[in-house]
Amino acid sequence: MNERNDHFPQLIETDALIIGAGPVGLFQVFELGLMEIHAHVVDSLPVVGGQCAELYPDKPIYDIPAVLMCTGQQLVDALMKQIEPFGATFHLGQEVQIVEPRADGRFFVQTSKGTQFLAKTVFIAAGVGSFQPRTLKLSGIERYRDTQLFYRVRDLERFRDKDIVVCGGGDSALDWALQLVDVAQSVILLHRREGYRAAPATVAKMHALCEEWRMQSIVGQLTGFDEEGGKLTRIKVTGGDGVTRSLDLDYLLVFYGLSPQLGPIAQWGLEIERKQLPVDTARFETSVPGIFAVGDINTYPGKKKLILSGFHEAALAAFGAAHHVFPEKKIHLQYTTTSTRLHKVLGVESPVFD
Amino acid sequence: MNERNDHFPQLIETDALIIGAGPVGLFQVFELGLMEIHAHVVDSLPVVGGQCAELYPDKPIYDIPAVLMCTGQQLVDALMKQIEPFGATFHLGQEVQIVEPRADGRFFVQTSKGTQFLAKTVFIAAGVGSFQPRTLKLSGIERYRDTQLFYRVRDLERFRDKDIVVCGGGDSALDWALQLVDVAQSVILLHRREGYRAAPATVAKMHALCEEWRMQSIVGQLTGFDEEGGKLTRIKVTGGDGVTRSLDLDYLLVFYGLSPQLGPIAQWGLEIERKQLPVDTARFETSVPGIFAVGDINTYPGKKKLILSGFHEAALAAFGAAHHVFPEKKIHLQYTTTSTRLHKVLGVESPVFD
Repeated sequence: MNERNDHFPQLIETDALIIGAGPVGLFQVFELGLMEIHAHVVDSLPVVGGQCAELYPDKPIYDIPAVLMCTGQQLVDALMKQIEPFGATFHLGQEVQIVEPRADGRFFVQTSKGTQFLAKTVFIAAGVGSFQPRTLKLSGIERYRDTQLFYRVRDLERFRDKDIVVCGGGDSALDWALQLVDVAQSVILLHRREGYRAAPATVAKMHALCEEWRMQSIVGQLTGFDEEGGKLTRIKVTGGDGVTRSLDLDYLLVFYGLSPQLGPIAQWGLEIERKQLPVDTARFETSVPGIFAVGDINTYPGKKKLILSGFHEAALAAFGAAHHVFPEKKIHLQYTTTSTRLHKVLGVESPVFD
Repeated sequence: MNERNDHFPQLIETDALIIGAGPVGLFQVFELGLMEIHAHVVDSLPVVGGQCAELYPDKPIYDIPAVLMCTGQQLVDALMKQIEPFGATFHLGQEVQIVEPRADGRFFVQTSKGTQFLAKTVFIAAGVGSFQPRTLKLSGIERYRDTQLFYRVRDLERFRDKDIVVCGGGDSALDWALQLVDVAQSVILLHRREGYRAAPATVAKMHALCEEWRMQSIVGQLTGFDEEGGKLTRIKVTGGDGVTRSLDLDYLLVFYGLSPQLGPIAQWGLEIERKQLPVDTARFETSVPGIFAVGDINTYPGKKKLILSGFHEAALAAFGAAHHVFPEKKIHLQYTTTSTRLHKVLGVESPVFD
């Protein structure tokens, strides 16, 4: 695996650019490889594997054909091994932000790290999109985003000696609340119910800190806020008893989990249907010729979000792409069992047949 | 695996009948099993595995996702293991001959062994069809089929003390010629060219027998025949020298290899397109609702004859079938990773999630 993390903008010319290094993106490398099409792969996560590696690395999967059981991580590992012969170039920890068609039929692609590509074909294998924080559903509160309202923490120092309310009941909310105890002037953890979805040790530690009056936990719903001179000064919390109380604060940190969003993909001029990319079922091409969509991000009649379906889509998309990459060449289906050409690209020995 | 080979006609009621026990037919068992639909499987071969087991049991396959390499037989073995929890019933060594829709929406199915089914849904996973012998292309000769012209040998005694011409240059032709030497009055092996595609030891043995005048081999094309009183008496063979010679004979045995044929499937009232069954790409249903076609036997825009594609088709066909089998039930996609219902049908323990 070649890792490219250069900080200088560069323009990489490629036959195929794959967006997403989840199982379907990885198998897209394989199917393109059989066509002798080299691919670059971009993923916003710092490791390959997508949801499989991120959400269920240790959980068993039973419905991969001919694989009795594998975990998410084992599936990813097996696919990485399978695509090894094709030497795909990976650009991890960066999000594709721009995809623009050019006059010559190629696509200009740029990532959040400034990596630039000119690609003959683009494969969107972005799963459910990129994971974005779930936001507060409270009219008007978004105007404080990134000044007093935060969905992620980049710099703890900003909160030193301030009054902080942390919303949420999962690991992120509790972990940040515990860390802020040592930094902030006051920390209040606000959760809509008594139970917490965090690690038991973390919950126990939080309760202990509350006992010591070093922080406070409140059960209730965020139902309103006050401002003064353009600043958020106070939030209103309605408890289980129906009583609404006010809490003074400097900063509001919200950890309601991540939800998948199309993100920049929505800006690329592709037809979108309920946050998904409609494709045909012959080539799994989007509304823009040369841009394919495979796996959970696409939609077509009968679509089921199965890894297996993504694999099939990647195979047919590779055939579709071959016509863009080699417009002169007639593409024949060959079998890995019998084709000496495929044995060569796979780097295996051709058996001698009668 | 339950083997049913009863000789008495029986009427088996089933939710799903799968025709073909190749990899795609086997995986169809899996996908139906996840829906809690039990399946009966019929195959004309005496073993499971279809082409994989029959044509390339020892040859490597490289393009099954997440399986670096497996042989045809290993693929079949892995699938058999994977479908074990679903207890499908296999009816091997018998060909499905009749599929007839009934007024109640079910299908009456009958095999060459007389096994009878009433099936709510039928899945044709018959690959390239059944393998039938390639026939002689000589106008009028077919009228002697099964009296003096044979494409397979069932009873050697029929040929005792007779004059036999065996056509073909492969293993079957040579093997039968060698066996007939001990039974028949005379054996002539007729092949269109000098080279034989049989095992070297067999070819050597044939040459030795020719040296001993116990049989004869002739290079030439079968170009005509004579009959007397409705009986085939003589064939005409044109040699490489352009001269046509006559050969007297009692029986003509032809071994030109097997070629896949739709066979009885062509009689079931299904729309057929160049020996394949057109299906939609949402449910992989044929022109007859309730009859699905998956794997190499179906066709749709973009179709590639990949095992992987057959697996995907089987998954979507199972969803399509669920609507026939459980018309009242709303079918939701569940994941084997997280669904306790699926863990139950798979017979695995549900992990405890946070």
